[in-house]
Amino acid sequence: MSSPGRSVKISIIGAGSAVWSTRVLVDIMLKKTLQGAKVFLMDIDEERLKLVYAFAKRYAGEIHADIEFHATTNRVEAISDSDFVINSAMAKGHRYYEMLREATERKGYYRGINSVEWNMVSDYHTIWGYHQFKLALGIARDIEEYAPDAWLINVANPVFELTTLLSRITKVKNIGICHGHMEFWNIVRELRLDPSKVEAEMTGFNHVIWLTKFRYNGLNGYELIDKWIKEDAERYWERWRATTSNPFDIQLSPAAVNMYLRYGMFPIGDTVRGGTWKYHWNLETKKRWYGPYGGPDSEIGWALYTTYLAYQMEMIKGFMQAENAPLTMLIPPKPSGEQVIDIVESIVADIPRKYQVNILNNGLIPGLPDSVAVEVPAVIDARGVKRISVTPPNNKVLKQVLLPRMMRMEWALQAFLEPGRDVLLEWLMYDVRTRSVSQAEEAIDAMLKLPGNEEMAEVFK
Amino acid sequence: MSSPGRSVKISIIGAGSAVWSTRVLVDIMLKKTLQGAKVFLMDIDEERLKLVYAFAKRYAGEIHADIEFHATTNRVEAISDSDFVINSAMAKGHRYYEMLREATERKGYYRGINSVEWNMVSDYHTIWGYHQFKLALGIARDIEEYAPDAWLINVANPVFELTTLLSRITKVKNIGICHGHMEFWNIVRELRLDPSKVEAEMTGFNHVIWLTKFRYNGLNGYELIDKWIKEDAERYWERWRATTSNPFDIQLSPAAVNMYLRYGMFPIGDTVRGGTWKYHWNLETKKRWYGPYGGPDSEIGWALYTTYLAYQMEMIKGFMQAENAPLTMLIPPKPSGEQVIDIVESIVADIPRKYQVNILNNGLIPGLPDSVAVEVPAVIDARGVKRISVTPPNNKVLKQVLLPRMMRMEWALQAFLEPGRDVLLEWLMYDVRTRSVSQAEEAIDAMLKLPGNEEMAEVFK
Repeated sequence: MSSPGRSVKISIIGAGSAVWSTRVLVDIMLKKTLQGAKVFLMDIDEERLKLVYAFAKRYAGEIHADIEFHATTNRVEAISDSDFVINSAMAKGHRYYEMLREATERKGYYRGINSVEWNMVSDYHTIWGYHQFKLALGIARDIEEYAPDAWLINVANPVFELTTLLSRITKVKNIGICHGHMEFWNIVRELRLDPSKVEAEMTGFNHVIWLTKFRYNGLNGYELIDKWIKEDAERYWERWRATTSNPFDIQLSPAAVNMYLRYGMFPIGDTVRGGTWKYHWNLETKKRWYGPYGGPDSEIGWALYTTYLAYQMEMIKGFMQAENAPLTMLIPPKPSGEQVIDIVESIVADIPRKYQVNILNNGLIPGLPDSVAVEVPAVIDARGVKRISVTPPNNKVLKQVLLPRMMRMEWALQAFLEPGRDVLLEWLMYDVRTRSVSQAEEAIDAMLKLPGNEEMAEVFK
Repeated sequence: MSSPGRSVKISIIGAGSAVWSTRVLVDIMLKKTLQGAKVFLMDIDEERLKLVYAFAKRYAGEIHADIEFHATTNRVEAISDSDFVINSAMAKGHRYYEMLREATERKGYYRGINSVEWNMVSDYHTIWGYHQFKLALGIARDIEEYAPDAWLINVANPVFELTTLLSRITKVKNIGICHGHMEFWNIVRELRLDPSKVEAEMTGFNHVIWLTKFRYNGLNGYELIDKWIKEDAERYWERWRATTSNPFDIQLSPAAVNMYLRYGMFPIGDTVRGGTWKYHWNLETKKRWYGPYGGPDSEIGWALYTTYLAYQMEMIKGFMQAENAPLTMLIPPKPSGEQVIDIVESIVADIPRKYQVNILNNGLIPGLPDSVAVEVPAVIDARGVKRISVTPPNNKVLKQVLLPRMMRMEWALQAFLEPGRDVLLEWLMYDVRTRSVSQAEEAIDAMLKLPGNEEMAEVFK
């Protein structure tokens, strides 16, 4: 019997991001509807690419999945005639961005000049994302030329900036995806609610989404949150401070609750990591709002995260070196919960399902321009993304959160499209950490002089 | 012979602003088309009102103008059945705002918490403009009730915020007016151009307008500016620094030229007073960019201006005390150059003319929301404001200047419409002068504790 996926070609750009792509590959292998598909793994890092390719082959053997894997360092080969291009590539990698962070921290910009109001997330690189923007645009241009009918599913950050950029200036059908919205279910769990009775909607920008609709068993779910804050929050925080082992465990942190009280809607997922400098001045402040590690984006939390990634990578390598170790012990053969392969299936097998996607606004959220990517629920099936009406954020969120975040997005895009030193300087002129023009100039110099930034220095001259 | 103005009623709210209203009254008296009109002067300051009323009567006698003047402290009486309501009222007056400035300067906010990027103008009160917003809205509500067909011509600052506010939430036909755009002619004069051969357009927001179109004798006028910058600017600045006696004389200042080089279009009028903190950190910085007084909005420039206003007031009083002194010596009987009475005439006598007005965008400048007041050229005649297509600002101005300015406008409106201490705190969380949350809290406390702010303290609690 032929599966609808038999003639499908999926390419994964940046497949060397092993921790992420191994899970996505397992998702593909598990899909009955995608059996017979061709999957092209592409990365410029040959060693990592080989590792992921070998993992895929061996895992497929273990679970008898019928997927044809290819590995290539040639992006055009991977993309040509693809039906789906999944982009998870981070140009230059984590270490490069840590260099930028350190160089500008030395000039007085705690956590780096890229960290600004509502984007304190340590690997969501906007103003200094030159290479990342260029890479994503290059991929989109390749798709225009070699696979014009393909869907580009972009999971690479900054999803907000990249979705807006690609939607504005390319013809590629693209969807931005993030898993942050799933943190909502931590609220459901902590409130001891029955998930089947929950009706919820989150809208905004990627990493800046808010619980715009929350019904429980037909009643107003926010009343349950209010009750929890009043009756349980203090006790919860006490236990959490003493026991949490995960810096990302902040969905019900004091920061989240304070944002809710401040803006009138609950922040979901990575949104909590944002906020104004009120939550981020320094490590001490971060600890007060985000718990013992100061959240994932403090110097402690982020070090834990990158170490965790490296550890996961070593785990994969270790399993691959032990020829007889079953890979299903490393990654159990069950869906990861990531949306990306479900989306591929919805399109391939025409199974309409609701997803949390990033697409151009075009009126979905009133008060925001049309040509800005919003993160909203939408239905996807064989015909693609079907826009549905959504519950927009309230006025406070719209004006005091989304507008300033949008402004920074526009500046980041401008820094890429019309680069010049002045754009960088302007960015810093609005930064609360800037004390003088010369401090800002020095930070820019420090960044542009770093090895690997020669091209950027030329462009931003 | 009957003039079209015979049955027209014009009310001037805030007529006690004597320096301004005496000039406007002379403009009315000089208009042939407005002879026979009724002019209601309204102010809550009886003494100033009497002075202006006496001035108007005596001046009319001197030039044989046929205008019927009335003075009243009753706003409804002034507004009822008016055809035109001119609002120039500043709630609480200059001294009140100086108190707010001083109180928050003591907490580390140089020139006060109201001074922020692209609004450094000392009497353009936005975030602390509670009384001013309330007054303007009250006037508009009176018009809705007692003169629903009247035109409200608002010259009271903040024109950007008030025009947006009134256009959004009232039914009043309102036009915001400012004379700042006329500074453009200083460029024409300095470049020694023939004004009759100049074709120019300025667009943006009030106090943030840019020379979007500049043709001279059919050629690109910007080339003449470039030539001037290259060949004459240095010499001009040398002479200007040594001789200028007017802190407002900044249309060709280093700040203006720097903004032009930075944003790619020339800033006009009060726009030059704005900019980021780059131009405003402290008095020394201001002097470098704006000349020996540090521009009109430095501690020196602003003191000179308020003193000048007081001096002008004394001049008017002096002339009024000297019963035989001809008032035409104080204010010559010729048009002031202000647009407001010309606009009244265009509507009353159906004389179509082009003006620089503030009206809702509704697509005039792409990339900006519809419901934001833009300052643009438009034609006015008996049917009202006729929108014409305008040359929009470039991308740099749009994204890096107008967006951040718009954001602050939205926050100022929100502070008025959904007030709360949190809104004020949020304002300061984006302020480059803020070093800590407690500093911001202290500044807010200092402001709300001032005498006269009891109501505001209640509202922003």
